[in-house]
Amino acid sequence: MRMTDLIAKKRDGQVLSTEEIQFMIRDYTAGIIPDYQMSAMCMAILLRGMDDREVLDLTMAMAHSGDMLDLSPIHGIKVDKHSTGGVGDKTSLVLCPMVAACGLKVAKMSGRGLGHTGGTIDKLESFSGFSTALTEEQFFENVNRHGIAIMGQTANLVPADKKLYTLRDVTGTVPSIPLIVSSIMSKKLSSGADVIVLDVKCGDGSFMKTEADAEELARNLTRIGRLAGKKCAAIITDMDQPLGYAVGNALEVKEAIAVLKGEEEGDLLQLCLALGSCMLTEAGFAATTEEAEQLLREAVRSGKALDKLAEMVAAQGGDSAAVYQPELLPQAPVVCEALSERAGTVSRIHAEAVGLVSMKLGGGRATKEDVIDPRVGVILHKKLGDAVREGESLASIHAADEASARDAVQMLRECYELSDKAVSRPPLVRKIIRG
Amino acid sequence: MRMTDLIAKKRDGQVLSTEEIQFMIRDYTAGIIPDYQMSAMCMAILLRGMDDREVLDLTMAMAHSGDMLDLSPIHGIKVDKHSTGGVGDKTSLVLCPMVAACGLKVAKMSGRGLGHTGGTIDKLESFSGFSTALTEEQFFENVNRHGIAIMGQTANLVPADKKLYTLRDVTGTVPSIPLIVSSIMSKKLSSGADVIVLDVKCGDGSFMKTEADAEELARNLTRIGRLAGKKCAAIITDMDQPLGYAVGNALEVKEAIAVLKGEEEGDLLQLCLALGSCMLTEAGFAATTEEAEQLLREAVRSGKALDKLAEMVAAQGGDSAAVYQPELLPQAPVVCEALSERAGTVSRIHAEAVGLVSMKLGGGRATKEDVIDPRVGVILHKKLGDAVREGESLASIHAADEASARDAVQMLRECYELSDKAVSRPPLVRKIIRG
Repeated sequence: MRMTDLIAKKRDGQVLSTEEIQFMIRDYTAGIIPDYQMSAMCMAILLRGMDDREVLDLTMAMAHSGDMLDLSPIHGIKVDKHSTGGVGDKTSLVLCPMVAACGLKVAKMSGRGLGHTGGTIDKLESFSGFSTALTEEQFFENVNRHGIAIMGQTANLVPADKKLYTLRDVTGTVPSIPLIVSSIMSKKLSSGADVIVLDVKCGDGSFMKTEADAEELARNLTRIGRLAGKKCAAIITDMDQPLGYAVGNALEVKEAIAVLKGEEEGDLLQLCLALGSCMLTEAGFAATTEEAEQLLREAVRSGKALDKLAEMVAAQGGDSAAVYQPELLPQAPVVCEALSERAGTVSRIHAEAVGLVSMKLGGGRATKEDVIDPRVGVILHKKLGDAVREGESLASIHAADEASARDAVQMLRECYELSDKAVSRPPLVRKIIRG
Repeated sequence: MRMTDLIAKKRDGQVLSTEEIQFMIRDYTAGIIPDYQMSAMCMAILLRGMDDREVLDLTMAMAHSGDMLDLSPIHGIKVDKHSTGGVGDKTSLVLCPMVAACGLKVAKMSGRGLGHTGGTIDKLESFSGFSTALTEEQFFENVNRHGIAIMGQTANLVPADKKLYTLRDVTGTVPSIPLIVSSIMSKKLSSGADVIVLDVKCGDGSFMKTEADAEELARNLTRIGRLAGKKCAAIITDMDQPLGYAVGNALEVKEAIAVLKGEEEGDLLQLCLALGSCMLTEAGFAATTEEAEQLLREAVRSGKALDKLAEMVAAQGGDSAAVYQPELLPQAPVVCEALSERAGTVSRIHAEAVGLVSMKLGGGRATKEDVIDPRVGVILHKKLGDAVREGESLASIHAADEASARDAVQMLRECYELSDKAVSRPPLVRKIIRG
C-alpha cells in the first residue's frame, strides 16, 4: 500500500477502505508517512469529503493510535462531555457534580488550558492541595466510591490526533467536518464513556459561525458516536459572549459553587441543565427532558450536587471546606471596577478579548511553562442586552497588583460595545440533536 | 503574509494575488515554507483550479526562481520545443537541424534521460567526442554561427520546479492543469526562446489519456505562453506506440540521420514536419502550413538539414564524419531477431515495455550514476496495423552479449499483441492548437 495512491484515490473522490485508513493512521503516527503527504491527504479529505463509514474508520483508527482507557472496572453508566470551547466555560465544574448526584458515573479525563483561560484542571487546582495525578486504580476507585473523579490526560492518549491537529493547524485543513469529527470523537472514544454529550458552540466567537454549520457538525458527531456504539447527543449553543459572569480560575470556581448552591440562575445553569438532561435521558435515567431537569434541579436544591463537588475535591487531596466557604479560595489583593464611560445597551462583548484580559492578569498561559495565578480574572456585571448607565461598572477586575489592574480596566472597556437601541439577547440553547 | 492564510484562500476557491504567488514560490524555493504546507496548497490548486492570471503569475514566479537565460546575444528568431515525452522520441535530433536549415535559431537546453531511454544529450553523445559542456558564450557563438547548438541544463534552472515536481510526485498532485502548465512553461520561459512549440501526447502510454484532456492541456499551455509574450503553438499527437522504429541511443541517431537523408518516411518525419511547420509559421517564415512543409522538405532534399546536424556535431567536438557514414557510430557486437511465434495483425505495442527492454540492454539509466551503453537497443520491424507471419521478425535486438540478447528477445515478444482482425492505425497528428 502506498500513501501516494491513497491520496490520489481521495483526490479523485473515491472512498478509502478500512484497511487503507488504518494503514494511513498507523504509519503516520509511527512517522513513516511524512507530513507533506498527510497534509495533501487532509486537503483532499476537506474538499472531497468522506462518507460515514470512512469517518467512523478514521475515528476508530485514531482512537486506537494510543492507549484506550477501559472503564469497565467502574460500575454503572459512565458519561462524558465535550465542548468546542469558549471563554469562561466552567460547565464541567457545575455539570459533573450535578449528574454524579443523580447517579451517573463521571470518569473524566481533562486537560490543562493553553490559551486565554485555564482548563478544568487549572480551575480545580484553585482548591489548595487538589491533584489530578491519580493512578488508573485510584481513578476507578474514586469514581466507584463517589461517582466522580477527574484525571489528567495520559501522555499517550490519541497520539495520531496530536500530530494531525498540529499539522492541520498550519496547512489550512482545520475546517473539515470529517477531520473535526474524527479528532473530537477519537478522544471521546479512547476515554471509554458510554454516554457522550457534546456542546457545539455557534456564533461569532466560535469555530462554527452559523447555526446551520454547527448543526451539521453536531449531526455528524452524534451519528459517528452512535455508529461507534455510544449513546450520543449534542446541543447547539450560542457563544456570542462569555458564559456566566466570571473569567479566571478561582473566580470561575466560586461562580460554579454559587450555581450549585442555587444562588445563581443564569445562562450557566441553563446550559448545565440542558447538557445534564441529555445525559440523563440518554442513560435512561429519565424519560423526558422535563423529568431530567427536575432531577437535576432537585440535586441542586437538596445540596447533593454541591456535596459531590466537595467529595471529589476531598478525595483528590483538596481542601473541601472551601466548597462550603468559597471565601477560603485564593483572593486577589487588588479589586477595582471598570466603569463605563457612556450609557447604552450592551450590543456586543468580545469574548476572546475578555479572555485575553484574564490572561494578561495572569489567569492563562501564553506558553506551556507559564504558571497560572488562580486569584486573578474578571467578573462581568453586564451582559448582552443589559442597560448601562454612564459611570456604572461593566466588570470587576481581580488583579495581583495596581498596575496590571489599571491596564486591565482599559482593555476591558474595549471589550464592550454599547448601542442606543434595545438589544435582544438570543436564546442560549439553540437546538438539541439526538444521536 | 502567512502561507496558512494563502492555503485557506485557495481552499475556499478564492484567487491568489500576484504578490501572494510570488511570496509562496520565493519562500518555498528558499526552504522557508515547508513541504507540508506546499503539498496542501498543491492539492487545493488541483481541486479548486486557478485562473489565467494566477497560472501566468505562478509560471513567471517559477521561471524567475533561478537563472533566466538571456538569448538576446543571438540574432534572429529563437525557437524551442517541448515534448511531454515518449519512448523512442528522437524528434529533436531531426527537427532541430531541419528548422535551423530553414534559418530559425535553435538554442536548445536539454537534459539527460532518467528512465527507460536516454535523453537528447545521451543520444548525441553517441558521436565520439561530442560535448554539451559549453559556456554561455560558446553556446551563443555556436548558434550565431551555425544556427544550432545544444547545451546541458544549468544547475540553477527553475529550482522551484525541481522542488515542486519532486513533491507533487509523492503527494498525488501531478495531474493538475495549472501545475503542469506552470512546470512546463516556467522551464521554457527561463530558456529564453521567442517561439515555443509543444508536442502534447495523448493515449494509453501518456499522461493525458484522452484527446479532450490533451487538448485542454495544449490550450492552456499555448494561452499562458502567449500571455507571457511568446509565440506559441501545440500539436496533439497519438502516442500509443513508440515513435519511429529505433529505441536506443546510437540506433535512434541512425534513424534520425536516415530521416534527414530522406530515406525514411514514417511517423517520425510526419511529426517533425508538423512541429517544424508550427515553428516556421509562428516565426513568420511561412504563411501557411503547406508552405512551411515545402521549406522543410526542401531542407531535407537539398541535404542542408543533414549538414546542420554535422555542423553542430563538429562545433561541439564530435566526429561529424559519422553523420554521413552512420556505420562509424557505435555498433553492438550481438544482433539477433525476435521472431513472432504466431501470425496476426499488430493490435498493440506496449511502448513503456519496449523502453524497458532497451534499458535492460544497457540503453537507459535506473539511477543517475548508471553509464549508458550507446550501442544497444531495439529496432522494431512491425508497428500498429502491420501484418505479421509466424516466424517473421518483430524486431532486431542490439545487445552487448548473447545472454542479454536472449532475455531481450523474450521480453520484446511480450511487448506485442497480435489480433486476427484488421487493425486501423490512428493518425499521428490529431490536432494543431495555435496560441
